[in-house]
Amino acid sequence: MAPMGDNVVVSNVNLEKLLSMKGGQGEASYANNSQAQALHARSMLHLLEEALDSVHLSSPEVPFVVVDLGCSCGSNTIYIVDVIIKHMVKRYESSGYEPPEFSAFFSDLPSNDFNTLFQLLPPLANNGGSSMEECLASNGHRSYFAAGVPGSFYRRLFPARSIDVFHSAFSLHWLSQMPESVLDRRSTAYNKGRVFIHGASDSSANAYKKQFQTDLAKFLRARSIEMKRGGSMFLVCLGRTSVDPTDQGGAGLLFGTHFQDAWDDLVQERIRSSPPLVSHCHVGSNMITARQRSWGGPQMRTDHHRWIKGLISAEKRDNFNIPVYAPSLQDFKEVVEADGSFTINKLEVFKGGSPLVVSRPDDASEVGRALANSCRTVSGVLVDAHIGDKLSEELFLRVESRGTSHAKELLEQLQFFHIVASLSFA
Amino acid sequence: MAPMGDNVVVSNVNLEKLLSMKGGQGEASYANNSQAQALHARSMLHLLEEALDSVHLSSPEVPFVVVDLGCSCGSNTIYIVDVIIKHMVKRYESSGYEPPEFSAFFSDLPSNDFNTLFQLLPPLANNGGSSMEECLASNGHRSYFAAGVPGSFYRRLFPARSIDVFHSAFSLHWLSQMPESVLDRRSTAYNKGRVFIHGASDSSANAYKKQFQTDLAKFLRARSIEMKRGGSMFLVCLGRTSVDPTDQGGAGLLFGTHFQDAWDDLVQERIRSSPPLVSHCHVGSNMITARQRSWGGPQMRTDHHRWIKGLISAEKRDNFNIPVYAPSLQDFKEVVEADGSFTINKLEVFKGGSPLVVSRPDDASEVGRALANSCRTVSGVLVDAHIGDKLSEELFLRVESRGTSHAKELLEQLQFFHIVASLSFA
Ligand SMILES: C[S@@+](CC[C@H](N)C(=O)[O-])C[C@H]1O[C@@H](n2cnc3c(N)ncnc32)[C@H](O)[C@@H]1O
Ligand SMILES: C[S@@+](CC[C@H](N)C(=O)[O-])C[C@H]1O[C@@H](n2cnc3c(N)ncnc32)[C@H](O)[C@@H]1O
Repeated sequence: MAPMGDNVVVSNVNLEKLLSMKGGQGEASYANNSQAQALHARSMLHLLEEALDSVHLSSPEVPFVVVDLGCSCGSNTIYIVDVIIKHMVKRYESSGYEPPEFSAFFSDLPSNDFNTLFQLLPPLANNGGSSMEECLASNGHRSYFAAGVPGSFYRRLFPARSIDVFHSAFSLHWLSQMPESVLDRRSTAYNKGRVFIHGASDSSANAYKKQFQTDLAKFLRARSIEMKRGGSMFLVCLGRTSVDPTDQGGAGLLFGTHFQDAWDDLVQERIRSSPPLVSHCHVGSNMITARQRSWGGPQMRTDHHRWIKGLISAEKRDNFNIPVYAPSLQDFKEVVEADGSFTINKLEVFKGGSPLVVSRPDDASEVGRALANSCRTVSGVLVDAHIGDKLSEELFLRVESRGTSHAKELLEQLQFFHIVASLSFA
Repeated sequence: MAPMGDNVVVSNVNLEKLLSMKGGQGEASYANNSQAQALHARSMLHLLEEALDSVHLSSPEVPFVVVDLGCSCGSNTIYIVDVIIKHMVKRYESSGYEPPEFSAFFSDLPSNDFNTLFQLLPPLANNGGSSMEECLASNGHRSYFAAGVPGSFYRRLFPARSIDVFHSAFSLHWLSQMPESVLDRRSTAYNKGRVFIHGASDSSANAYKKQFQTDLAKFLRARSIEMKRGGSMFLVCLGRTSVDPTDQGGAGLLFGTHFQDAWDDLVQERIRSSPPLVSHCHVGSNMITARQRSWGGPQMRTDHHRWIKGLISAEKRDNFNIPVYAPSLQDFKEVVEADGSFTINKLEVFKGGSPLVVSRPDDASEVGRALANSCRTVSGVLVDAHIGDKLSEELFLRVESRGTSHAKELLEQLQFFHIVASLSFA
């Protein structure tokens, strides 16, 4: 493969305009790679229902409004909204009240594939202008009015005092942007050599952490305006059990090891401009040794111009960072308490399980593929934008082959922990 | 070109699942072919503003909610929503009230390209959790919360009593479906030989009309539940000045003449299986004569099997009908009065202008292209579904060449009339 263009160093991308899970319904699409999230969400349903039990029931003339933030384009969001509404209907009924009409807002960044989501929505129950109760009777149909809301959840999305329940799953660990300093060569927080916070220096890690906490504060502030009194918020995001932010746990394993190594491969794999003096210097794309992996970088460039360059420059790699931060309970709690608008009903870390869903765990190549798909579904759009489709393809092939070589270890060690927060607005 | 497959006769398609204007931002996309609608809408802004002047102003704590029904994916809908909200803000201000927060719902069928629409939305003014007034100050930004609502406007889309203003432009002439009888060979309303109501038999025309009136009745019923008291509805759709529904005016010229002829071309252009006895029988795709055009159809099929078949069968053509009906004022009024929920502030027919926007009117080929694009933007998705992309391409090439031959006439005669209805809900 020829080296691509000139590896221009681009500045921090506008994440809000770009970020999305892989759309459509293809192999690497989120719609087809969110079974793990589905499983993890299901294991927390009792916590969600507990949170819903604290929501204030208002009069049947006022519609009951549910929001899923960071809904993406798979069917998980449709499932969860259905669970929430069914649970609320039951609560209305067992309290002897007539249930109101329900509205659900599916919200994500404008680059999310809303078209695919809308195609997945079941049709509205045939209400023919009559009461919502009839609708609730019919199956395979939805019993709520649906709308899609494009925008960042770090800003206002809804009118004041209009929402009864906010739900958000597996989304709040996405930062609104990479902190500038992490990508700035002149800064002490520059994350040299790395594409994620995992294993980074303390000052890089602090910059990540600060971004997370600033973002979460904005999130809570916006929601505290939009929420009706008596409303409830149920949030789940990646979390970590270590106090040290440079140990990102499952997220660290996902983006800080094989994914990191695959980036390093792209930097190290080189194109010959003339026959090398020493033949073992020729690093074929499938012959990566530990020695070569730990190769130091730029200095070899001046090796009598024998090598043009790597597939990408080290700088190009360093300019890419995954804008994800798995907070500790403490990181999260500090922000909720400082905001002060919400009562904490529950704030805990739960073991979620593996993001890798495989049918034959002893098939190493399936595990490798699952790792590559997992990485790609969530970060593929960003990687494509940074190095182009072709190199991105190369990168994920390397993630896959590295995943295959470490299949056993991955299945044993790749575990996600989640922060679960159930908050009320009084 | 080889004949395509076996021209299986498909039954009435599920319009709600299929219909959309051409998405994306390409040459034949709605986003790039809606300048005519933009111009026509602009010419009616004073009527819209008059309608808005009758809307009840509610307290600033309650959000003011605007809906555009049949929004499609171009920028017209964004423009109109902006006009509506700016006008309402002015009204609040000149009445000495603080303006409330604004919400806008963009609604269309689930097959609409909402992704493109969401990309075109300006960013929300940076409110940072503060008042909406600040937002209204900043330009190039939107001053309202936005959401997309997938669904048919012939059904419920919103909770009861939640909407202040409904707007709908150039959409209500789309029927919810083709009346079965029009596509049923055994019915007297079978629209034999034709792809549109224009020039059809009385019983075909009656079936179209009945469908329109049933649909409009459902539309009004749903809106009368969703609308807040004091709210207002401004509707514009294709209309006709003739009392006779088989004279569809501009819509008739668009879908009943060159478009009709292009379908007939596909039926008549034939593939030879052996050399014809009479050479003038060979109808090349660019050699269409009046005689050939008036050729009667199926009977020539049995011509000693000298011809396999046309590019499509006559039946295939007859099974396609454009589900559009341009009502007369009377057609429309009857339904509004029968519904009885709305006060009619204005109900008139206005001359709208041509759907063909051309930069050099004396360039016949530009006119032909404009005609083909106009037809294709609105009906292309349906045509593709009925005969496949390849034959659809052939069809619109013929529309184009026929339009080119009749450029002068088209520019003079192709005029749209619109029904404008301004209705209040007391
Ligand atoms: C892993 S998906 C979760 C999808 C879904 N909630 C589920 O449970 O399957 C994370 C989603 O968060 C969205 N997201 C990230 N940052 C966001 C932001 N600032 N505002 C809104 N959505 C955001 C992403 O676009 C993505 O669709
Ligand atoms: C010509 S476009 C008008 C777009 C826009 N209002 C404008 O002024 O440019 C007509 C739109 O009506 C939509 N439409 C047709 N039937 C509909 C229905 N039953 N429910 C909702 N939208 C419908 C179509 O999908 C299409 O986007």
